Amino acid sequence: MGTVIKALSLLDHFNATRVSIGLSEMTKLSGMNKATVYRMLSDLQSAGFVEQHGDQRNYRLGTEILRLAKLREAAVPFFDVGQTFLESLSEETGETAHITLLQRGQLIEMGHVYSTTHATRVVMDAADEFSFHGTSSGLAILGFSDETFVDTILSKNLIQHTAWTLTDTNDLKAKINEVKKFGYASSKGSFEDDVHSHAAPFFDSSAKVLGAIAVAAPVSRMNKKQAEKIARLVCKAAIDFTEKTGGKMPDIYPRIS
Amino acid sequence: MGTVIKALSLLDHFNATRVSIGLSEMTKLSGMNKATVYRMLSDLQSAGFVEQHGDQRNYRLGTEILRLAKLREAAVPFFDVGQTFLESLSEETGETAHITLLQRGQLIEMGHVYSTTHATRVVMDAADEFSFHGTSSGLAILGFSDETFVDTILSKNLIQHTAWTLTDTNDLKAKINEVKKFGYASSKGSFEDDVHSHAAPFFDSSAKVLGAIAVAAPVSRMNKKQAEKIARLVCKAAIDFTEKTGGKMPDIYPRIS
Repeated sequence: MGTVIKALSLLDHFNATRVSIGLSEMTKLSGMNKATVYRMLSDLQSAGFVEQHGDQRNYRLGTEILRLAKLREAAVPFFDVGQTFLESLSEETGETAHITLLQRGQLIEMGHVYSTTHATRVVMDAADEFSFHGTSSGLAILGFSDETFVDTILSKNLIQHTAWTLTDTNDLKAKINEVKKFGYASSKGSFEDDVHSHAAPFFDSSAKVLGAIAVAAPVSRMNKKQAEKIARLVCKAAIDFTEKTGGKMPDIYPRIS
Repeated sequence: MGTVIKALSLLDHFNATRVSIGLSEMTKLSGMNKATVYRMLSDLQSAGFVEQHGDQRNYRLGTEILRLAKLREAAVPFFDVGQTFLESLSEETGETAHITLLQRGQLIEMGHVYSTTHATRVVMDAADEFSFHGTSSGLAILGFSDETFVDTILSKNLIQHTAWTLTDTNDLKAKINEVKKFGYASSKGSFEDDVHSHAAPFFDSSAKVLGAIAVAAPVSRMNKKQAEKIARLVCKAAIDFTEKTGGKMPDIYPRIS
């Protein structure tokens, strides 16, 4: 692994529950030696990617990230366009709509919109770590990922989130084949007992899967008619979102009537 | 310059008017040799910092930026908090409020809010390149930057934006001393003829200047009373913003009564 990739890999250790990291902790997390980690953090700091703060001089992500995000958003208006799609999805379905991004092999929640239609709703918690095998977003993404990636994910220790979580590789492969066939995934109580969600994948300009758009509803509110409606709407949203953000649907994606 | 810093410096060439860059163009812009640039872009690509798109396979900023921005914003809610301050500033003044960030020696507009009070307003154009010596935001930042940085900026070729732009080093140093004394900068027609703006600096956790909050109004609508009110409000906003984002005002910042 080259120096650049190694240095940037340090940024992987920042996540929703770990926003600030000290030198010793980063050394442990990275498995590299302290002097190397220090030198790399100093380089990242001088480029504005991390900054030190507080009495402990711990590292957190820096303001250069904001400049780049602003530019990326100007080039490909993900948040802006995404927000619009989430707003109409949650309004049309009366349920919680959210977008998940596949980033470095992980599922990252990019945003969500709640509906005010009902007194109860599925709440998105920033600290939730979504699993691929348990969530409709994860399954939607696996349905259109390459085989190596699917095998990597399925060969991991798959958490039994609820009594309904599939953890058997053959069961999951069958589920993934359904996703390929229908263009969306559904998950009934397999991540959280009382949540029934539907998700469809969206794609980048090389027709590589980039993330998923999902609608999550309480199981108690779901029926066949509503499930069909939501499935149709998430597929339409994912296809339109792909187009609006300069992406391309892959040839293997089914034609949605 | 180390490899990591060199590689990250390639990202500097992306800006509001250049969101996509081909390999040859990047080679020219960076002054490095093509093989090196290619290798570095490949590293940045595998880390998700850039991606190739379109028929030309040009590079643009990648989705890893979005993941990091999301985390940075969760750690230090700049956009969120900033938006709140801009909304109240524009409401209280009836004018355009905006935030500028100092990033790698450049002024980057981070956001703005228009007021609906008047039929005319100062419009922020994403493609505008703000100068330090011409704008109140730039001057507010120079007032609290270290001398080396001030000298670097003032030794450049200073554009005469309007008849009112100061370009003489001594005049500008006098102006900067005023900023230090009062804690804010004003610019009457020195960047655009018909704009009168006031700006105050905000600071990071090491009390280093990070950017400025400004209010820009048409010259025709400004009078002494309104100017005093705006100056007071931008100072208050910048001080409060510093505090809310985990920053620290420097000891040399004047006490605002």
